[in-house]
Amino acid sequence: MDPIDNVRIVLVEPEHPGNIGATARAMKTMGVKSLHLVNPARFPDPQADWRAAGALDIVAEAVIHDELDDALIDCGYIVGTTARDRHVPWPTLTAEEFGAKVRKGFGTDLPLAILFGRETNGLTNQELLRCNSHVRIPSNPEYGSLNLAMAVQIVTYEIFKSSLDGEFFEQRWDRQLASSTEIDQMVRHLEQICDLVGFFSPGAPRHAMVRFRRLFNRIELDETEIKLLRGLFSHIEQKNPSMEESTESSRIRY
Amino acid sequence: MDPIDNVRIVLVEPEHPGNIGATARAMKTMGVKSLHLVNPARFPDPQADWRAAGALDIVAEAVIHDELDDALIDCGYIVGTTARDRHVPWPTLTAEEFGAKVRKGFGTDLPLAILFGRETNGLTNQELLRCNSHVRIPSNPEYGSLNLAMAVQIVTYEIFKSSLDGEFFEQRWDRQLASSTEIDQMVRHLEQICDLVGFFSPGAPRHAMVRFRRLFNRIELDETEIKLLRGLFSHIEQKNPSMEESTESSRIRY
Repeated sequence: MDPIDNVRIVLVEPEHPGNIGATARAMKTMGVKSLHLVNPARFPDPQADWRAAGALDIVAEAVIHDELDDALIDCGYIVGTTARDRHVPWPTLTAEEFGAKVRKGFGTDLPLAILFGRETNGLTNQELLRCNSHVRIPSNPEYGSLNLAMAVQIVTYEIFKSSLDGEFFEQRWDRQLASSTEIDQMVRHLEQICDLVGFFSPGAPRHAMVRFRRLFNRIELDETEIKLLRGLFSHIEQKNPSMEESTESSRIRY
Repeated sequence: MDPIDNVRIVLVEPEHPGNIGATARAMKTMGVKSLHLVNPARFPDPQADWRAAGALDIVAEAVIHDELDDALIDCGYIVGTTARDRHVPWPTLTAEEFGAKVRKGFGTDLPLAILFGRETNGLTNQELLRCNSHVRIPSNPEYGSLNLAMAVQIVTYEIFKSSLDGEFFEQRWDRQLASSTEIDQMVRHLEQICDLVGFFSPGAPRHAMVRFRRLFNRIELDETEIKLLRGLFSHIEQKNPSMEESTESSRIRY
């Protein structure tokens, strides 16, 4: 089983139904499906549906409990999200560390409950004591008050991200990088064009060519881009035939 | 200058004022201050203020433009957030890679603009062409549609996180871990208690002690926890004086 299917998001006494909907959407974007609500102030509610957008299924399947204990009764591991340091320190992970730990597994196939507290004052001390460990989202020390659904978004994002093993983009570059020979030939061609249009002062050192070489070696041109540049250079040559002769001397230097 | 002070969040034609407020709050929780709005549908608006919570200052200082170009005129680097693969692939970073790159710097002191598109259909192709690179948030391939402010939250979170150098929690454990000798003595004390209360079958191998040793060596007890356990064991001994004598033989084994 994918560990992410084991994750249960538990909102404890959410006050605004909009946050329930936004939580459902946040969960779904990160592949988390199970939502439990403990004593929500208003639910179901049109605000929850509206903010859920394409995650109405998660709202519809949300399980409602009167007491936190009921939401935890079959769980194998419980974490509580908290924004504050505690008088008695609890084992605490950053959201990122927690995401990695979910992926690694908690040594149980029972649900992993992640508790999120009330909008106004979070989880009570008593609720936090129920947890095996706590999770914190790093935030601005001067104003660290994340919206409830935002906190769900970040925690589920970190869980989802840890499942990717560093590989996410399906789309790769659509062309091969140019070879060093192709780049070298293109830069030589460019120098001919510079000569052709009188870009260099006669007899002066061609410092610009060092900059051009650094530029075109650095930027990882692909084959199509090289062809585009060479094509453009050729058109410039064709439009400037009268100057061809005068640059013959510089061109044979190679 | 801290690179995060260079970050400018640009919302392009946001449709819902609530998302502007939620964006401001998301930014502030991650220490980002500069918000620019291109042709917002409704702004200012009470919904924006309500969702901003403690980030009203960012809403009040938001700069409004008629055209995207005006929001970018003094910028040194432009990234566009996108959820889709493009016909012509653009240099694309994950939010996490981008966060790390912001911290490292883009070789410019000019503002770094991060563009977020419309709620319904994101940034246009034309707008994405203006960008130096694109940023994507890894998400569920079956439903990856993050709310606008959620996307801002994650991107700014990754920027903030990269500034922490792996160190975030100010609060450390409040007690020293117990020494291995203290743990060993406590486990020996526990074995006496087991004898005292008749937990072991006479003559049978004491496999339970292997489990107890593994448990107490694993769980990183601190000094206070050791004292609590030893205190409890002593109280059990005092309450069971009648059995003292019968366990004398087992106790002197050490």
